[in-house]
Amino acid sequence: MTFIEKLRNRWQQANSLVCVGLDPDPAKFPDAFVDDEDALFAFCRDIVDATAEFACAFKPQIAYFAAHNDGEAALQRLIAHINGNHPDVPVILDAKRGDIGSTAEQYAVEAFDRFGADAVTLNPYMGRDSAAPFLQRNDRGCVFLCHTSNPGARDFQELDVGSEPLYQRIARTIANDWNADGNCALVVGATFPGELKVIRGIVGDMPLLIPGVGAQGGDVEAVVRNGKTEDGTGLMINSSRGILYASNGADYAEAAANAAKSLRDEINRFR
Amino acid sequence: MTFIEKLRNRWQQANSLVCVGLDPDPAKFPDAFVDDEDALFAFCRDIVDATAEFACAFKPQIAYFAAHNDGEAALQRLIAHINGNHPDVPVILDAKRGDIGSTAEQYAVEAFDRFGADAVTLNPYMGRDSAAPFLQRNDRGCVFLCHTSNPGARDFQELDVGSEPLYQRIARTIANDWNADGNCALVVGATFPGELKVIRGIVGDMPLLIPGVGAQGGDVEAVVRNGKTEDGTGLMINSSRGILYASNGADYAEAAANAAKSLRDEINRFR
Repeated sequence: MTFIEKLRNRWQQANSLVCVGLDPDPAKFPDAFVDDEDALFAFCRDIVDATAEFACAFKPQIAYFAAHNDGEAALQRLIAHINGNHPDVPVILDAKRGDIGSTAEQYAVEAFDRFGADAVTLNPYMGRDSAAPFLQRNDRGCVFLCHTSNPGARDFQELDVGSEPLYQRIARTIANDWNADGNCALVVGATFPGELKVIRGIVGDMPLLIPGVGAQGGDVEAVVRNGKTEDGTGLMINSSRGILYASNGADYAEAAANAAKSLRDEINRFR
Repeated sequence: MTFIEKLRNRWQQANSLVCVGLDPDPAKFPDAFVDDEDALFAFCRDIVDATAEFACAFKPQIAYFAAHNDGEAALQRLIAHINGNHPDVPVILDAKRGDIGSTAEQYAVEAFDRFGADAVTLNPYMGRDSAAPFLQRNDRGCVFLCHTSNPGARDFQELDVGSEPLYQRIARTIANDWNADGNCALVVGATFPGELKVIRGIVGDMPLLIPGVGAQGGDVEAVVRNGKTEDGTGLMINSSRGILYASNGADYAEAAANAAKSLRDEINRFR
């Protein structure tokens, strides 16, 4: 089954558009993990097990693992845990890779073979040949940055490149050219709902990964109304900090589950 | 000493603008490493020791390590080896990172603290706040993609954003705004010497990292003439495959040294 098929199945099966972001920051961990040398893995595993029933996808952010010695081993075990215990929930490795073709081949091995992710986030700035080694793995997903959730998204992504802003040109290029095998998706920040609506108009029913609700301030209703497809899906609405750190007491896992369920229900009110 | 000071000293001391790229691909290793479980580290260490006297910088490409289990441990030992044995040669971690601020902070820890690099390559697509956590580490270097060496560089980097192409806007923004602490550099592909000349005109004496000579076909004379600063420096001209795989026989280290020396001498003819 391809990433896109797995995602579409999961949207239906879990009746959820919630993507659970796994950005483990030891400074914010519940007290239970203070002296746990395996805390990166153990905390994320508990969050995964508590939230899986409300999740259409998990999105580990590799930077939070790569900041630590042996962090990659924890990430590898975490994705193996998800694939083994929650095999219906796709894993998107958030890595924002982008490099010349020969290097991109190595990054594709990293994401898909070493870590076993179903999809990976990619930066399109270096163009078509930098994406090709990922696109060719057409059972996996390629989730390209389009219009990101941060303030700096305005610096270059919104520059007018003729008849449209750069982020729209990128959306159009990916939809019309790079997506020949139907394995592409885009990152569009929840903090820019107007831009989200325009992008949905360009890309048809291509899945969109939406960071920026919760800590970054994006509005759920505007995201769903502007971003959903005709069948009320099409979105992976990510929450990381709002779920992971819902409580730092002994009830952290239950609180995470409640936060994921609440977000799912809030989203579903507008679908 | 900052990255930029270390680089300027090294240009003078070694009389060299050669950056030795460390892209270890086991499929291309000399026969001596066939059964060596520590080959990633051992091969690169031998190349480093053989070529250091001709190098103004070393540039390990993290993807070639990240494609392997425990590859990061090999990379960490390699950079520690360089810092310990060749302390005058700066290390640029080629990672092309770029993410929202909170994630970028983690990537800065990865590059500068975990791996001990003097500088890191970065993707500017996500804008100012995605660069800030790196820029703030102002003893280290931030090497931003501007106009890359691959064919796909034309897809988005050359789009006209009004009075100039996107890559020029990025060069200008970095030179005039992001470089307040003088710790920025740019990536400009050797395969686009005309664009290199324009960029040099925009950024003054900012250092430029130049991939694309050798296997990718860039012309050394055009690069030096179009890219050098008034004092005949300003460039880190990278060669990876042309040095690493100069021979796959028992003389691989000597052949790598000869290739690095030849490139240095060829460059110096045009300075």
